[in-house]
Amino acid sequence: MGNAELERVYFDNAATTPVRDEVLEEMLPYFRERYGNPSSLYSIAGESKKAVETARERLANALNAEPGEIYFTSGGTESDNWAIAGTAERAAGKGRHLITSAIEHHGILNVFKKLEKNGFEVTYLPVDAEGLVSPEELEKAIRPDTILISVMYANNEIGTVQPIDDLAGIAAARGVPFHTDAVQAAGHIPIDLKKTKADMLSLSAHKFNGPKGVGALFIRKGKPLEPFLLGGHQEKGRRPGTENVPGIVGLGKAAALAVAEMPEESARLAALRDRLIDGILGGIPHTRLNGSRTKRLPGNVSVAFEFIEGESLLLLLDMKNICASSGSACTSGSLDPSHVLLAIGLPHEKAHGSLRLTLGRYNTADEAEYVLRELPPLVARLRDMSPLYKAGVKTMI
Amino acid sequence: MGNAELERVYFDNAATTPVRDEVLEEMLPYFRERYGNPSSLYSIAGESKKAVETARERLANALNAEPGEIYFTSGGTESDNWAIAGTAERAAGKGRHLITSAIEHHGILNVFKKLEKNGFEVTYLPVDAEGLVSPEELEKAIRPDTILISVMYANNEIGTVQPIDDLAGIAAARGVPFHTDAVQAAGHIPIDLKKTKADMLSLSAHKFNGPKGVGALFIRKGKPLEPFLLGGHQEKGRRPGTENVPGIVGLGKAAALAVAEMPEESARLAALRDRLIDGILGGIPHTRLNGSRTKRLPGNVSVAFEFIEGESLLLLLDMKNICASSGSACTSGSLDPSHVLLAIGLPHEKAHGSLRLTLGRYNTADEAEYVLRELPPLVARLRDMSPLYKAGVKTMI
Repeated sequence: MGNAELERVYFDNAATTPVRDEVLEEMLPYFRERYGNPSSLYSIAGESKKAVETARERLANALNAEPGEIYFTSGGTESDNWAIAGTAERAAGKGRHLITSAIEHHGILNVFKKLEKNGFEVTYLPVDAEGLVSPEELEKAIRPDTILISVMYANNEIGTVQPIDDLAGIAAARGVPFHTDAVQAAGHIPIDLKKTKADMLSLSAHKFNGPKGVGALFIRKGKPLEPFLLGGHQEKGRRPGTENVPGIVGLGKAAALAVAEMPEESARLAALRDRLIDGILGGIPHTRLNGSRTKRLPGNVSVAFEFIEGESLLLLLDMKNICASSGSACTSGSLDPSHVLLAIGLPHEKAHGSLRLTLGRYNTADEAEYVLRELPPLVARLRDMSPLYKAGVKTMI
Repeated sequence: MGNAELERVYFDNAATTPVRDEVLEEMLPYFRERYGNPSSLYSIAGESKKAVETARERLANALNAEPGEIYFTSGGTESDNWAIAGTAERAAGKGRHLITSAIEHHGILNVFKKLEKNGFEVTYLPVDAEGLVSPEELEKAIRPDTILISVMYANNEIGTVQPIDDLAGIAAARGVPFHTDAVQAAGHIPIDLKKTKADMLSLSAHKFNGPKGVGALFIRKGKPLEPFLLGGHQEKGRRPGTENVPGIVGLGKAAALAVAEMPEESARLAALRDRLIDGILGGIPHTRLNGSRTKRLPGNVSVAFEFIEGESLLLLLDMKNICASSGSACTSGSLDPSHVLLAIGLPHEKAHGSLRLTLGRYNTADEAEYVLRELPPLVARLRDMSPLYKAGVKTMI
């Protein structure tokens, strides 16, 4: 490759991923030839219904769950909203205390904030410098009137993977329903719902090379939950609306492929990730890793550069055809610093100087080397423009 | 064609439609090459963002609305839920009285039923024998504490098109927010939101040859509405979740095509429809038309056959490769008779003997003639098995 510019280096796979060829291929017949409404009675509708049930089995297998525990939704946000609002509505008579973490996605946090306005009380568990929730703190936070605990499986910004088995186990032992937002984990790290005692789990297809606009909520058998959307009888009366058949087919296929290839692919990504982390920390001064070195998603690199502004760095990287982000895609456009980076203890100005590189199945070692070559001069250029840096304020982070 | 059996006659276009080739073609690049998250900052994301905005403009043009008044959702059910729940939440302090009609889709009715449980009062306007809501009755039902009126644009079962301009005009004159479920109307009959004073309008792409899993809610500029889903900042902070870019692109394209071809296509379908209605009513005794002869969707045929059971007829039709339905797809599987047919005055046993044939852009005159040839002997066969019919009870409906 030499020093040539690469055409496009897409290092923002936590924001979204391209649909895999094999996935799109399975979806295509359901747009035109097999377009029947699964609820109808004639044969063409039976084909659609069967395709939806095949996808349900595939996803259940991928999570080691039962097909009857899988409900298809429009994506991670709907799944998260449903799990929390549906539990709160169902259990409000029993209690009005809820527990979550300080570093959840806004699809979770904003539902809790609304519940607070409606008379619920929410405990936001803090995280340590690596972004980890403490099982002991969870244990202590549970009260007799606690009706729901929701802690994300893995964080979208800093890649920290929670001790989810421990957290879910505590909830189960105390008889409190436990939900986990696994939007960043599903398809990337092993999930085993026979082992992990979560009652609900959210995921989204487009985070693991499936299509946008489709997700799922796992609801453990026998666990009550009010519906969120109201309407027709679809999904056993729990989630109405004509099934997005091509999307659901794509979700099932993407899940099956991701799980089959996970051991090999996750080792490959972890090696790329570590090469990037080592290269950046070693090559650029005044830089720290956000999150945990070991309890980390295989594809997540998140670093804080002192004395620079993250969005400016993104623009310079884009000019080098490198697609990256400063935090989550869902909050870009907002000027507030990331609540996740603040929660792990970064001060405002350092939270603003963060860069997230997230790797996926189409990324190569050449691309990592390209970024390691291009990044240091861009950081240096921005620092040269920084009054603080020029003034010689070089306190290490 | 002679007497040959046709390979498949799909007369259930109100349940769902195949995606048009031109629509799928525009969608395809957004699954793989142009897969960026519209919220991201780099160039590939800009392509996605631009595609979403183009779709918004196309849909706005199709409805004679402003692009800023269009919000993309996961489909008709979400749009309906959002409009009603979002208005009730917003305006609960002003009043707790709501008005709708007796023949709405369950995506509407079930939200009102839940609101009733939560202390709201709902007036269900009756309809006449043709399924029409009376503007005078609406006028009389409005009270000082009425905070929302929702009346569907056109009915999914019997095809009746409401005097929506009159109804929305009354609401506007009385200062009450007006929503209309246009899932069956959009793409099929002209909608002009500069003329029709509706504040909110729901639609779904897969009902007019767009993809499943995507819809929209029109919210008139300046009209308040609480969000339904909570999360990221997408859709100006009113509807979170990563945009379903290929689906939205497909919705925009399907809307543009439907509106461009509407004058010609709706005349063609109305002629097919009338040929079917005349042929069935003229050729099969003890049969009546459900709905209005004139205020009717161009593609809707709904008839009630005395002395037969609708689901048995559907199975026999399926054996002749004819895809039809007894009512709405969303309630098939339920043994209750249609609330729409009951509301227009059919007794239970006649409501059970109804057949809906709904036409779309791929239907031909040959298909209509095929159905007119195959249907009478099937009805006769079922009647021969009916004890009531055999006993000679032949009172005309």
